[in-house]
Amino acid sequence: VRSPKAALVCVGSELLAGQINTHQAWLSVRLGRAGFEMVGEQSVPDDVALISLAMTRALAAADVVVVCGGLGPTFDDLTREAAARALKRPMTFQPALWKEILGRFARYRMKVPEENKRQAMVVGGAEVLRNPNGSAPGQRLRAKGRTMILLPGPPSEMYPMFDAVLPKLARDHARGVHVASYSARLSGVAESTADESLDPVRARWPNARFTILASAGEVSFHATSAEKSAAAARAATARLRQEILDAVGAFVHGEGDQTLEHALGARLKKKRLTLAAAESCTGGLMGGRITSVPGSSSYFLGGVVSYANSVKIKSLGVPSALIAKHGAVSAECAAAMARGARKALGADVGVSITGIAGPDGGTKEKPVGLVFVAVSGPGRAETLKRLEINGPRDVVRGRAVAVALRLAFDAVGA
Amino acid sequence: VRSPKAALVCVGSELLAGQINTHQAWLSVRLGRAGFEMVGEQSVPDDVALISLAMTRALAAADVVVVCGGLGPTFDDLTREAAARALKRPMTFQPALWKEILGRFARYRMKVPEENKRQAMVVGGAEVLRNPNGSAPGQRLRAKGRTMILLPGPPSEMYPMFDAVLPKLARDHARGVHVASYSARLSGVAESTADESLDPVRARWPNARFTILASAGEVSFHATSAEKSAAAARAATARLRQEILDAVGAFVHGEGDQTLEHALGARLKKKRLTLAAAESCTGGLMGGRITSVPGSSSYFLGGVVSYANSVKIKSLGVPSALIAKHGAVSAECAAAMARGARKALGADVGVSITGIAGPDGGTKEKPVGLVFVAVSGPGRAETLKRLEINGPRDVVRGRAVAVALRLAFDAVGA
Repeated sequence: VRSPKAALVCVGSELLAGQINTHQAWLSVRLGRAGFEMVGEQSVPDDVALISLAMTRALAAADVVVVCGGLGPTFDDLTREAAARALKRPMTFQPALWKEILGRFARYRMKVPEENKRQAMVVGGAEVLRNPNGSAPGQRLRAKGRTMILLPGPPSEMYPMFDAVLPKLARDHARGVHVASYSARLSGVAESTADESLDPVRARWPNARFTILASAGEVSFHATSAEKSAAAARAATARLRQEILDAVGAFVHGEGDQTLEHALGARLKKKRLTLAAAESCTGGLMGGRITSVPGSSSYFLGGVVSYANSVKIKSLGVPSALIAKHGAVSAECAAAMARGARKALGADVGVSITGIAGPDGGTKEKPVGLVFVAVSGPGRAETLKRLEINGPRDVVRGRAVAVALRLAFDAVGA
Repeated sequence: VRSPKAALVCVGSELLAGQINTHQAWLSVRLGRAGFEMVGEQSVPDDVALISLAMTRALAAADVVVVCGGLGPTFDDLTREAAARALKRPMTFQPALWKEILGRFARYRMKVPEENKRQAMVVGGAEVLRNPNGSAPGQRLRAKGRTMILLPGPPSEMYPMFDAVLPKLARDHARGVHVASYSARLSGVAESTADESLDPVRARWPNARFTILASAGEVSFHATSAEKSAAAARAATARLRQEILDAVGAFVHGEGDQTLEHALGARLKKKRLTLAAAESCTGGLMGGRITSVPGSSSYFLGGVVSYANSVKIKSLGVPSALIAKHGAVSAECAAAMARGARKALGADVGVSITGIAGPDGGTKEKPVGLVFVAVSGPGRAETLKRLEINGPRDVVRGRAVAVALRLAFDAVGA
């Protein structure tokens, strides 16, 4: 079974001036899971010749080309013109579409700038894609058996429009391809160890596509395989899942999009336990991640950011003698902070982080990157981990949070 | 004065499978400030034909091509082979380079895998770029007056190698171009307002390049202008700076790379004031940002994440009657939280955030996105801001943090 190919064109001078390109990752994941093989991405400035050239190249390499950005109303929104040029087709003003755009503005009682008329210009043969979340309509173009989709740049407009058009893209180009797809989320394991353990799985699936992505303290492993029928795809998904869990199941905290903070939250919710945090070198990052989950207020009570030792003593009840004897970066202090957070906030489980994030503050005995994380509870259980993390300040802090969340996940239990 | 052109090639299948491409933004900013005009970026999977094609296209469009990734020791590290193919040159094994690589491993008492020999393969005519931070050497290639640089993928190796090679790139390709460059960092202002206020500056500099980037609650404005002499560049930088400050100076918290948390920290340090935080809906994100600054322990004592009302009452001393009367998301509660954090931690200044981040929990009177931020101190000063933020949970939280940091920045004063 041959996978159809997809390519991306990201339009906007800001992408070549410091703005992080998040569309590339978002679209790649979705297209990959839908059975497309990604052959490349191009970012181009707001220049009609460069955009048009990028489109031509992408159309030569891929069955489906997704273009995002440059559909706004201003003079530097040139994606429509570039598409017309790349396909050698005219553009026409569509009065009906203009009326729709006017209607949208009227609902918000806004005056419509004359320049917005550009947004009612449509490339010859295009199907207009409605935009319920903004003024820029998208366009769907077919040429020589290929499809090019023009999407608006803002994520709140682009995401739903892409999700709406994806099933048809798959029907048109991945006909007969049924995709088996499975993603495992791992923590508490090094990327290289996970990678090695998964080698036999890859060896058994020579035609599947695997990707392994590591970020601070976490590893994602994705597998997709193109199959000949829906039943075969279902069976392959089940087999891939089982083989991956057999290989690295002990480290898997979630499947699909389930983050570590989601997985921890789900366990706490299921067991009706509450959580409190005590953070030193991470300054609140752990609480920030825990509360990124909607509804986390049902199990997360809050925490204490005890950056200064006085706060560790006063707000968390860490004995000053303990700090004097072992130091604020010690197993003893981490354990006392976890117990202290639990007690001060009246939670079932307390989780703590204390360490030296750097770049300064390290000594020979306690180098930069030395971090202790501890969990107190549920019940009488106490667990602790000592880490020596190699890397700059943000890496030390990010990995410390992931390890602490994983320790709490294990302590709460399935 | 004509600006030389630069293009990027980012190599790695992970970039087309969900990994965020941060090199694109990082390299674009540096090349832009050095006087290069960015004409595009391509991300390609680990496929020698696709990498080579991307290089050929980039070399046709730009004076300087920066390639990152694919210089590791494994079978899917193909950037060297692709460069040799694109330039139609042989690759040779360099025993001296191999000895250096072996020496590096010996220092860490590691066994060297045989496959690492690939890293001692050098494209004909290349200058080898030493890598003090990893095993992958870089390569600098010249062809038909153009330069292509091969850099390793890991940021800890790529960043210093690029910084080391940039002056020579500028000397070779931006000879006679002297770059005036100024960046202002703004907060407490909408992007559209800042943009409009800066229109007259842009109009006075038709040949300069301007970029405006907005992220949650903050706006960056960069200006570069190619000048004929070092003296002209210095004068133009000073004039750009003055004109930009005249237009939007009230909103500028920093210049160059100075983030809002850096700027706030600098003011606190200068005035020898300490800071404490109280966070509800942001769960610790504000503390996380404040402590991203190395040395922040000299002014940041810590904070309380009062996600549950019980924590607001117990740890911050917010009267339960106040919460009963006004609710936890209210101006009154925000003010009491800021005072409470200040008092509980013994800080000179307290800053607080309380709000409804969504997606659930909103009511008609208190919709999702309603946020109050407050600052107590220094001295008797109290300030407060009410926000209605439109957007998903992460946008609400990110913007709330930026507004709170800006409010504290203003309260501390210059």
